[in-house]
Order: sequence, then structure tokens, then C-alpha cells
Amino acid sequence: MQGRTSLEKAQDLLLNTTPVLDIVQVRLESALGRIIAEDICADSPLPGQDQSAVDGYALGSPQAAVNDRFRLISGFKLGRVPTAALKPEEAVGIATGGILPKGCRAVVPHEKSAINGSELQVLEVLKPGQNVKRAGEDYTRGEVLVTAKTRLGPGHIALLAAYGVEKVEVSETPRVGVFSLGSNVVPWQAPLHTGQTRDSNAPMLCALVQGNGGLVTEVHWATGRDGAEITAALADMLRRVDLMICTGGSYLHGASEIQRLMESIGAQSLYWDVPVQPGSHTGAARSGSRLLFALSGNPAACFVGYHLFVAPVLRALGGEKPLPEGISARCSNGFPKAAGSRRLVRGYAQYTPYGWEVEVLPGQKPSMIRSLVDCNALIDIPAGHPPVEPGKDVSIILL
Amino acid sequence: MQGRTSLEKAQDLLLNTTPVLDIVQVRLESALGRIIAEDICADSPLPGQDQSAVDGYALGSPQAAVNDRFRLISGFKLGRVPTAALKPEEAVGIATGGILPKGCRAVVPHEKSAINGSELQVLEVLKPGQNVKRAGEDYTRGEVLVTAKTRLGPGHIALLAAYGVEKVEVSETPRVGVFSLGSNVVPWQAPLHTGQTRDSNAPMLCALVQGNGGLVTEVHWATGRDGAEITAALADMLRRVDLMICTGGSYLHGASEIQRLMESIGAQSLYWDVPVQPGSHTGAARSGSRLLFALSGNPAACFVGYHLFVAPVLRALGGEKPLPEGISARCSNGFPKAAGSRRLVRGYAQYTPYGWEVEVLPGQKPSMIRSLVDCNALIDIPAGHPPVEPGKDVSIILL
Repeated sequence: MQGRTSLEKAQDLLLNTTPVLDIVQVRLESALGRIIAEDICADSPLPGQDQSAVDGYALGSPQAAVNDRFRLISGFKLGRVPTAALKPEEAVGIATGGILPKGCRAVVPHEKSAINGSELQVLEVLKPGQNVKRAGEDYTRGEVLVTAKTRLGPGHIALLAAYGVEKVEVSETPRVGVFSLGSNVVPWQAPLHTGQTRDSNAPMLCALVQGNGGLVTEVHWATGRDGAEITAALADMLRRVDLMICTGGSYLHGASEIQRLMESIGAQSLYWDVPVQPGSHTGAARSGSRLLFALSGNPAACFVGYHLFVAPVLRALGGEKPLPEGISARCSNGFPKAAGSRRLVRGYAQYTPYGWEVEVLPGQKPSMIRSLVDCNALIDIPAGHPPVEPGKDVSIILL
Repeated sequence: MQGRTSLEKAQDLLLNTTPVLDIVQVRLESALGRIIAEDICADSPLPGQDQSAVDGYALGSPQAAVNDRFRLISGFKLGRVPTAALKPEEAVGIATGGILPKGCRAVVPHEKSAINGSELQVLEVLKPGQNVKRAGEDYTRGEVLVTAKTRLGPGHIALLAAYGVEKVEVSETPRVGVFSLGSNVVPWQAPLHTGQTRDSNAPMLCALVQGNGGLVTEVHWATGRDGAEITAALADMLRRVDLMICTGGSYLHGASEIQRLMESIGAQSLYWDVPVQPGSHTGAARSGSRLLFALSGNPAACFVGYHLFVAPVLRALGGEKPLPEGISARCSNGFPKAAGSRRLVRGYAQYTPYGWEVEVLPGQKPSMIRSLVDCNALIDIPAGHPPVEPGKDVSIILL
């Protein structure tokens, strides 16, 4: 058994063992939130040609003064390529996105013009290039549009669509397996007998994993299975997932049931026991490129453990900063207990005109769910810290 | 045609016309991010009985001093209901979540105890109730667990699972239709002819809507359809969606093509023309409880218009604060143009030890996509404001 590992050291060990995911092709319209696996470069300038930026009139001169008059020619249709060049005294109707005819270097918007028969009168001063989108002004040919390892957001989708990209190569969604080891814990939908506890951790972990771009592909419960069956089920599941989260299990006289189980299926310990409250009896192991996490069966400890150990790995897989930096916040209501170990208190943080403010949520026992419901921040109280008085500054990790 | 409507007035008009969504039943494991339609109350206390909070030994006395000794009895199994009461001198092994036998009001954790044969020695001082989860300490019977109109997060899922909730009633996901009216705009996957523009707005809107808990269920393009066909397609789509977003369309001499189309299908104008840059030629109409939005065809104006007008409605449907409050941020690089109308500049905001800092992103023309790619904030510059100098404070809306 290894000694206690600091939180930072444990996180380091995990981030050095990031699972390798397969690459898969998806259609652009299904790519939101996926991690692109390749750099995509511009194969042409954007826009491709000089275009009008407004609905109005293309002018045959590069500029105009108020009351300048132009002869209006017709026969210009949006979506058609203009063939004839405009003469300096001519103007032609054009819509936003219309390709400019040769000879045109400025466009007057319709609302800044007046028409008398076939004569167009300009009502404002126009500078050369005004209301013109120049070819390549947004992106130039060869420029990198999206770099590999980026999680695709709406702006990336828009940009790739503008380039006609139909499919992109992305990392496979991380598959996560959950194994609940508590011998009195039953699936939450099952009939409950006295002495049994409904498993709220598995559905909570499904939701948390989904929020970090992963997918819980299977959930197992140890209840009613003997040791050999549990070991076989764990080994079997490990072949099908990228990450495995075990919750609960006994921890008697320094011997962790999960640690023993993980070792029995050939996984190598990364760390065991991290001095944090709640959930110090936590650990992780690796098996090839797969990671196995041991989290507490207590709901709040499971929640905190997920955010401290599992979420950073999922974020790293998405090319994101794995560990959000702690920020300073005013703790409005304080926390009455002195910290033995480093303590992660569940809070609700809000940004106010005076900076960040965090409220300690009620129900802070590790076994209670209440503090999780509105939790959007962990208050990080150092080991040995005295009680936090109301109004004092604390360090928070925004979730 | 109505006159110009302020942004706040337009948002008010929209929020007074929130669509009514159907109610549907979903399984709890599929309920993440959905809006619950009912209050759910606790039908029992949580936990249901006094339980052990640790793996350890239930003691026959309510407290203990260091070196107190107890006679260890056996035959106690997790998940079974204890029948015999503990005598004051007795102790019995118990796991986390195990129901306490009668006579027990404290539990010693295994790591704070030592065993010699059938004798248990306590190694720390124990107070009455220590390491005991009292029945109802997390939630009491009849308490509201989740209130109607809440968007369900991982904590709600955990809590409802702890109560064995299998299915919940939620609002139907808002169905959104997108109609691209630009006559030279083609679907982004289609072959592109010179003079045509690929539609990046529809896929961007699909992604944005998904981020606000809605779903774009259909997308249409006007290209190649005549006026009657477009009107028929719009009217047809309106029967199948809760919100409709039209993008682009001509706007010549004060006449908006979208406004005319919306009126032709019997929708009533809510507002037209809002003095904001980019995208002032915007409007909305209602048809029964359905909302129709007219957004610019320019990508950046479409993006800004979505966040100013559509997102608040989707958030309101989710019981969330529809309009995020503006917060103050230091603008690191400034913005060189004076604002005519109120201007929404795309920025990238970060929280630093000195407060919020925002960077004006490159590519701020309404026709350009570049500023959208990393945009996480809109910088809200009042009408008539001079250029923003680097380092000055601005108001930002976090997206």
C-alpha cells in the first residue's frame, strides 16, 4: 500500500495517463461538442470574391459625394456573375452577398439613396471600398480554420459550414463504465427492502459524465454477486470502456475492497488515499491506456471525487484546461468547522458587482445529497484552517 | 410599419409571448437538462432509518472514551434489519449505510479501533450521535425536492434517484424551425456556384439552439423557390414548430421581405427594427403561442440577434433568468470605432485575479465569421459612445 498522495500529485498522475480514444467521422451537423482530431485549413479565401455587404446599389465610381447622380442600369440578378463592367456614371441594384461587377469599388445602401426614374441619387458620402466585402477579408487561403483537439462550438460549426465541410474526424466519445460496490446498494428503480440504499451515484455520474462530453455506456451493481462474479464483471467491463468508476465498497482496517479488486484484474495502482474531505478513501489504477477510479459511495464524496479526479481527465481528452484555477470569493455565510484535512465544501457562487460571492450550501455531511442540488462551486479550504467567518475570502473552484 | 423599438422593449414583448410547450414523461436517466413540469415532494424521510455513516462498529453506549472496551458480537450483515438490541457493553461490525441496531447511538470507525479476539478497543473519544446518519437528516417527509420549471442537473438527478423516481414529467423540448431566405444562399453541403453563398447560419443556429436546450427540427432554404412556394413552406413549417427563425431576406427601401412574409401567413408583428449594431433590421411576430424571429443573414448579426432575442425565450422556457445581467470588465485591447447605434461587439472574456477582462476579437464586420469562433461575451457599447481605449471598463454580457 502506497502512502497518502497529495491532490495535486494524484491529478498529475492521472493526467499523465490520459486514455487514447479512437477517431471517428461524424457529419458536421452532429459535431457540436465533439473534439476535432485534425487541423482544417481554408482551401479558398472567404469570401471567394468581392461582394456587396448591403442591399443597395453598386456604383461605377470608387466613391461618391452627397447628391451625386448615377444612371441606373438593370438586368442584375443576385447569384449571377456580372459580365459587363460598370461605367463611372452607372449604378446597378445589388443585394447583400452579390458579386460586384467590374469597375465597382463602393456600394450605396438603399436607404441612403433615392431613385427618380432611371436616375439614382446618392444621399451620403461614400469612401472607396465602403459596403464592400473584399475577397479573403474573413479568411485567406491556407489559413488554419480549426486546430486539432478543439471542442467544436457554434462558431466552429458556422465556419466549417461556410467552407462546405460535410464531415469531420473527431475523437470517439469517451465510454465510461460505472460499478457500484456497496453490498446493500440497489439500482434506484428497484424495489427497496429495509436496510438497502438506493444508488443515487450511478445516475448522478451518468449526468456528470455527459456534462463533460463523455457517455456512461454501462452500469453494474455488486449487490447479490459474490467476489468471483464481481471480479469477472469488472474485468469484462474494462474491455469495453475507456474509463471505469467504482463507487463504494468496504474499507476496513486500511484494506480497500476496490483496490484489491482492481489489482486482482491486473490494473496497476496510481495512487490510494488522498487527504481531502469528503472522500479521502479514493484511488486510481491503470490498465493499459484505461483508467479506473475508486470513489466514495457517499453521495457528496462521490460528487467531489468526480470533479477532482474524473472531470480533469475528461476535460484533458477534450483539449481543454483540465484543472480550473482557484479564484477568490467572499464567503457570505461562512463555514463553522475547522478543517482537519483539506476540505472541499459545496457552494453556490455568483458574480456580483463587488466580485465573486459564494454561499456554503446546507447539508454538508458526505452522506447527504442536499448540498449537491444547487452546487456550482467547491470551496477549497486548506488543511488545518480555522472556521471560515462570514464575509471572509476563500478560494473556490467553479464547476 | 412600427417605429424602432428599444432592445429592452423588444425583449419584454418576446418574454410576454412565451410559447406553451407540451408535457411529456421521460425516464430519469434521460432527464438531464430537461425542465421538470411538476413539484416533486419527499414521500419519506431520507435516510429512512438511522444508519451508520462509516465502516466500523456500532456501540452499545451513546458515547465512548479512549481505551473503552466492548464485547464484539457477530452475526451482523449489511442490508439486514437488526432484530436484537445492543447491550451497553456490546459492539457489532457495521458498514456505511447499515441500519443501526436498537441501543446504538454512536459508531466508531474501523481505523479508530483495535480488536483483540472478541474485544473491541475504542481509540478516540466518541460523542453521542457520532458517525450516525439520522433518519430524515437529509430530507424530511413532505419536503419539496424539486420545484416545477427547474432545469434538471446532476444533483437533482441524484436526489430523485435516491427517492426511486423512475419517470418525471418534463416540458417537451422546444422545436425550432430555421428558414433561410437569401436568394443566393445555398445549403452548406450543396455544390457551390459562383455568386452563391454557403449557408453557415442554419448549422450555427442548430448548435446555438441545442446549447439552450432546444432542437432545430427542420431547416429550409428559399433558393430556387418562388414567393408562393416560400409562403406555403413557411406556413407549413409553422404548424410543426414552437419557434421559427428566418434569416436573411431582402430589405429594400424600408420594406422587409421577412415582415411581409410573416404577415402573409397571418402572424402579428411584435416589433421591427431595433437600434443595435450589427443586425438592426430584425423583428419578431407571433402566431398563437408560436414565435417567429427575423434575424439578419450576416453571420455575426445572426449570432448576436440569436443571443439578444432567441436565447432569452429559450432560457425563459427553462425557468432560467432570461437576461443575464451585464457585468463590468476591463477591455484589454479597446475598440477603435465610435458607436452610432448601441453596438454589441464580440469578445473573449476571462476572469483574472483583478476581475473580468475582455478582449475584442478580430473580424468585427457583420459579414465575417472570425469573431464568432472564440466569442464567449458580447461587449455592450451604448449609442454614441466614443472609441473604447485599451484598458477601459466596459459592460459585457457573458454567453
